[in-house]
Amino acid sequence: MEKIKVGIIGAGRIGQVHAKSITYHIPNAQIAAISDIYVDGAKKVAEELGILKYYEDYHEILNDPEIKAVLICSSTDTHADIAIEAAKAGKYIFCEKPVDLTVTKIKAVIDAVDKAGVKLQIGFNRRYDHNFAYIKELANTGKIGDLQIIKITSRDPEPPAIAYVKVSGGIFLDMTVHDFDMARFIGGEVEEVYANAAVTVDPAIGEAGDVDTALIALKFKSGAVGIIDNCRRAAYGYDQRLEVFGKNGQASAANDKPTNVEFIDENGASTDKPLYFFLERYMQSFTDEMTEFIDCVINDKETKTTVYDGLEALRLGLAAKKSVAEHRVVKLSEIEA
Amino acid sequence: MEKIKVGIIGAGRIGQVHAKSITYHIPNAQIAAISDIYVDGAKKVAEELGILKYYEDYHEILNDPEIKAVLICSSTDTHADIAIEAAKAGKYIFCEKPVDLTVTKIKAVIDAVDKAGVKLQIGFNRRYDHNFAYIKELANTGKIGDLQIIKITSRDPEPPAIAYVKVSGGIFLDMTVHDFDMARFIGGEVEEVYANAAVTVDPAIGEAGDVDTALIALKFKSGAVGIIDNCRRAAYGYDQRLEVFGKNGQASAANDKPTNVEFIDENGASTDKPLYFFLERYMQSFTDEMTEFIDCVINDKETKTTVYDGLEALRLGLAAKKSVAEHRVVKLSEIEA
Amino acid sequence: MEKIKVGIIGAGRIGQVHAKSITYHIPNAQIAAISDIYVDGAKKVAEELGILKYYEDYHEILNDPEIKAVLICSSTDTHADIAIEAAKAGKYIFCEKPVDLTVTKIKAVIDAVDKAGVKLQIGFNRRYDHNFAYIKELANTGKIGDLQIIKITSRDPEPPAIAYVKVSGGIFLDMTVHDFDMARFIGGEVEEVYANAAVTVDPAIGEAGDVDTALIALKFKSGAVGIIDNCRRAAYGYDQRLEVFGKNGQASAANDKPTNVEFIDENGASTDKPLYFFLERYMQSFTDEMTEFIDCVINDKETKTTVYDGLEALRLGLAAKKSVAEHRVVKLSEIEA
Amino acid sequence: MEKIKVGIIGAGRIGQVHAKSITYHIPNAQIAAISDIYVDGAKKVAEELGILKYYEDYHEILNDPEIKAVLICSSTDTHADIAIEAAKAGKYIFCEKPVDLTVTKIKAVIDAVDKAGVKLQIGFNRRYDHNFAYIKELANTGKIGDLQIIKITSRDPEPPAIAYVKVSGGIFLDMTVHDFDMARFIGGEVEEVYANAAVTVDPAIGEAGDVDTALIALKFKSGAVGIIDNCRRAAYGYDQRLEVFGKNGQASAANDKPTNVEFIDENGASTDKPLYFFLERYMQSFTDEMTEFIDCVINDKETKTTVYDGLEALRLGLAAKKSVAEHRVVKLSEIEA
Repeated sequence: MEKIKVGIIGAGRIGQVHAKSITYHIPNAQIAAISDIYVDGAKKVAEELGILKYYEDYHEILNDPEIKAVLICSSTDTHADIAIEAAKAGKYIFCEKPVDLTVTKIKAVIDAVDKAGVKLQIGFNRRYDHNFAYIKELANTGKIGDLQIIKITSRDPEPPAIAYVKVSGGIFLDMTVHDFDMARFIGGEVEEVYANAAVTVDPAIGEAGDVDTALIALKFKSGAVGIIDNCRRAAYGYDQRLEVFGKNGQASAANDKPTNVEFIDENGASTDKPLYFFLERYMQSFTDEMTEFIDCVINDKETKTTVYDGLEALRLGLAAKKSVAEHRVVKLSEIEA
Repeated sequence: MEKIKVGIIGAGRIGQVHAKSITYHIPNAQIAAISDIYVDGAKKVAEELGILKYYEDYHEILNDPEIKAVLICSSTDTHADIAIEAAKAGKYIFCEKPVDLTVTKIKAVIDAVDKAGVKLQIGFNRRYDHNFAYIKELANTGKIGDLQIIKITSRDPEPPAIAYVKVSGGIFLDMTVHDFDMARFIGGEVEEVYANAAVTVDPAIGEAGDVDTALIALKFKSGAVGIIDNCRRAAYGYDQRLEVFGKNGQASAANDKPTNVEFIDENGASTDKPLYFFLERYMQSFTDEMTEFIDCVINDKETKTTVYDGLEALRLGLAAKKSVAEHRVVKLSEIEA
Repeated sequence: MEKIKVGIIGAGRIGQVHAKSITYHIPNAQIAAISDIYVDGAKKVAEELGILKYYEDYHEILNDPEIKAVLICSSTDTHADIAIEAAKAGKYIFCEKPVDLTVTKIKAVIDAVDKAGVKLQIGFNRRYDHNFAYIKELANTGKIGDLQIIKITSRDPEPPAIAYVKVSGGIFLDMTVHDFDMARFIGGEVEEVYANAAVTVDPAIGEAGDVDTALIALKFKSGAVGIIDNCRRAAYGYDQRLEVFGKNGQASAANDKPTNVEFIDENGASTDKPLYFFLERYMQSFTDEMTEFIDCVINDKETKTTVYDGLEALRLGLAAKKSVAEHRVVKLSEIEA
Repeated sequence: MEKIKVGIIGAGRIGQVHAKSITYHIPNAQIAAISDIYVDGAKKVAEELGILKYYEDYHEILNDPEIKAVLICSSTDTHADIAIEAAKAGKYIFCEKPVDLTVTKIKAVIDAVDKAGVKLQIGFNRRYDHNFAYIKELANTGKIGDLQIIKITSRDPEPPAIAYVKVSGGIFLDMTVHDFDMARFIGGEVEEVYANAAVTVDPAIGEAGDVDTALIALKFKSGAVGIIDNCRRAAYGYDQRLEVFGKNGQASAANDKPTNVEFIDENGASTDKPLYFFLERYMQSFTDEMTEFIDCVINDKETKTTVYDGLEALRLGLAAKKSVAEHRVVKLSEIEA
């Protein structure tokens, strides 16, 4: 079997996750090169995984004609520009989320991708999670029936550093963006957003101009309603649940835990906390999204997670920000498309 | 032990529930009389439970000086007038919810009760439910920590008849009223309401001017946020859950089921549906609210579920209706107090 | 509706349970009299429940021609003699378990009952438990398929007083007797018993000639195998579980708990301990067995829980004792029938 | 980092599992060679995983001085002889279970290993399972308290082919052997065995001289009691549970499932069946046992799963066979040591 050659741009945490998925679990792909502006990081990953080339400058990857696909795992502010260059270079693209924090730049990426005739898959890995993918299947096959209420719970074990909060685009673009994508994945297009937000975790987050706790009410075009609840910190750790209610029944995904052991004594029965954070909770989904990406590259197929999904999730985030700022229900049509 | 004498006005379903609680489970009270405009119904209950007197006209109960407390279990439109008369007659009052569908009338009841120096307990039985009362205790004792997010799920197994829908005051006054009270019971006073409603169960409900599916987002004075999700019909039956998230952790109540049996075969593992409807689900709470009522009467104590709670739940319902009608966030202060 | 008149012999804890079931939940029966050798106990119950007559001497009950059925709730050593007298007096009999600790005496009861043409229901209340009765139904309707393995867990929250242990007949006759009946209820007749017993809770129990921890392996005539595990003390309380494995699947009953609330914090997720002890756990089953008894009396039907079931459970207990004493597998046919 | 060189003897299913663990998850080891009497199988694995050498004759591995450790993954009847040869060649040994079906041969292996001063780890992977290892930790740290009752459930989704049954040594040596090891892992040494066995799955298994359903009662030297229940076929799939009851409480491990999704509709609530079979259920444990093996080789440490554990598990299996054959309790001291 001939292996397809890919390059990875960015050798940080998520770049390493993808590098390992490809090396260990995707037999029909090979990482030909990895780059990082911090070149020692690229070198270390290259040595560990037997990647033959490593660079400081990602253009070396884009200019390598043997490399058919690239993974953009660099910092968020560079995503769009690199994606446009990669498209011009004729590469298939896997881009970490968010593509950008502005509609304009994402649309420029869409244009570049369309013009070049390549494809871009965005890293909404949760679509590939075993629990959520199974619920999607129950919805698709009609087991749940016409959807009526979609509820997403998404809470982190710890808030990010305040320095990060300040450049993150805010909770709706940084954290809820995954939940907006999940809402669309399950319920289709959204018409209206109302965000009910508060600072309950850390006043410093409020001082940085952001909120840390939010309920986001959604109205879907289908007539269904939805609710996302977010918090930057849950004392018990990472809380990732989904509940989908329809005419025939309801599917709900509980948190994954490290063990299935129950201990019971005079104080009551106890079980584990959820898996610690996204790397533990979503490890399998990172591999599965990469498997789909490579499959789409090899077979020139459309991915189920396109750059358009990145655009729409961003627009929902912008609508939520506007809802908080103006303290009212916001129609998605009010946000630049 | 001397038994306190009570009279029951209304011998329908809920009147019978209370009559049995008192007869079988509350040794320090005795039902002296029961009335119903359909006197044969009162007679039947009286014979079954050994109640000595039954009447068509509830005034016979109000005029009986031996009767110290009355239960108002008649139709909703009569609650307020009877309550005012009962207060004037110096009776302690247990009144089924809702006291009335208007603020004006409830305030008249409050006035009458205050003037007469009697007390009125309203039938928000869910406060006495074993699951919810335990969560309230966890909140009160600080185990959950400062509250951040309160989530209430409340769905019925079947919608009521359309004829009832038309006179019910709508889903927010008829069904959500219990959930509004639960929200206040756990989270304290509410500042703002946004209701995101739809007709997804039965178009006839929409034609009757009501909705059958709703998400109601709440902002509490404490800074916490809350969400109630309602549906007039869940395929799997009565869905009554509560989830309270705070700085130290989260308490959540699952549905009660008829058995704890799991059956597993080649199709997977299966368990029961929830208990069928409110009579099955909340039977113990009906007895416990009545036990508190009798205790308050005997010891002239204040109940934890007053007519004021009835007023505030109604105001939240009116705010939700306004929110749907005007498609915007509504401050509770906009509603007559 | 005419109420059937019953008499209760023994006004202790279990006598009171049945007295309340009949008074509050069984409309077609009435307690005409109650007796206790400690007559003040009988008097107190009579007054509380409105029973018109109370006696020191149970013969007053047996001699009352209006009383059609009696409940024998006195101490175990008196069960058989009273049952024989009651049968001679033509009464229908409900007898608490065990009928007696010897085969000879139980057979005398069977003879008396047969001669008199009356019926005797024994107080194996667990057959009426919601969880276990549902598993029995799954077995009867073929959902589980041919039974292969039956597992019963039965552990108490606290051991009884040593004084009681000495006269109890030992763990197998006193505690396991319920489990032996459950084994037969689900799996039919037993052929062989091997009991693997130990003293792990309290050396004083060993000094009293008994054991406090036991595994009892069963071979059923059907070819299925079974295991009962007992302990006189579980730190977490009353543990009452059943697991039935067959060709098509498995049904298992978990413990019942006071609430369905889960609390999760940085230490993990926790839920309640099981309901405290048999009165809490099996309250509904006590009412349901009494409902069946009254129904059998009124309609002269055979009960599903006969004196023969008491005999067979005793024989299994004696086989288990023999197995421990002789440290070998014991065939049930070795025990006097 | 220098990688330790290992050789794998046997390229079948379990050989491939270990080969992948080492290649993908154990950075400090490298597979230098793989052999199989069916050499094309070895070649295929070698090519897939980038192993440089493959052989038909395992002696090529034993004779390679660069290879420090070998994995014996060939058929059971060859384990002991190869292990003895490997010990003589000075290799560290990982040997799949069972080492042999006779005490004599295992003792010869122990002798050879001792003489050569090498170490042998046996493939009782379940000791490394996340659930069971956590229960072991709860036991070790005293959370459970002095152990009183140990219960192991172990049922397969399908029986093996009859041809295999005939050479397998029977259910106790082939299937229960893992459970015997788990019993010893948790509860320490065993004193007595009583096996209550039946043929309930397939008469052909009985005709082949084996049983397919068994309860094995254990008495531990500590005074605790234990029960293993086995069945060659569970309609719902692989059933792997453990329950450990002690003075302070109980720890129990439920089955692992593919998802945490619950679906509920008018038929009730349903969840997944357990993970299909041992490869799915125990995948992580295979990697973890191999990680320990490599760690022990590199640091010349004693493994926690030695050839002596293989011997004792075999002796328990032989005791169980004798118990069935002679229909009595068997002391472990009756079995050659």
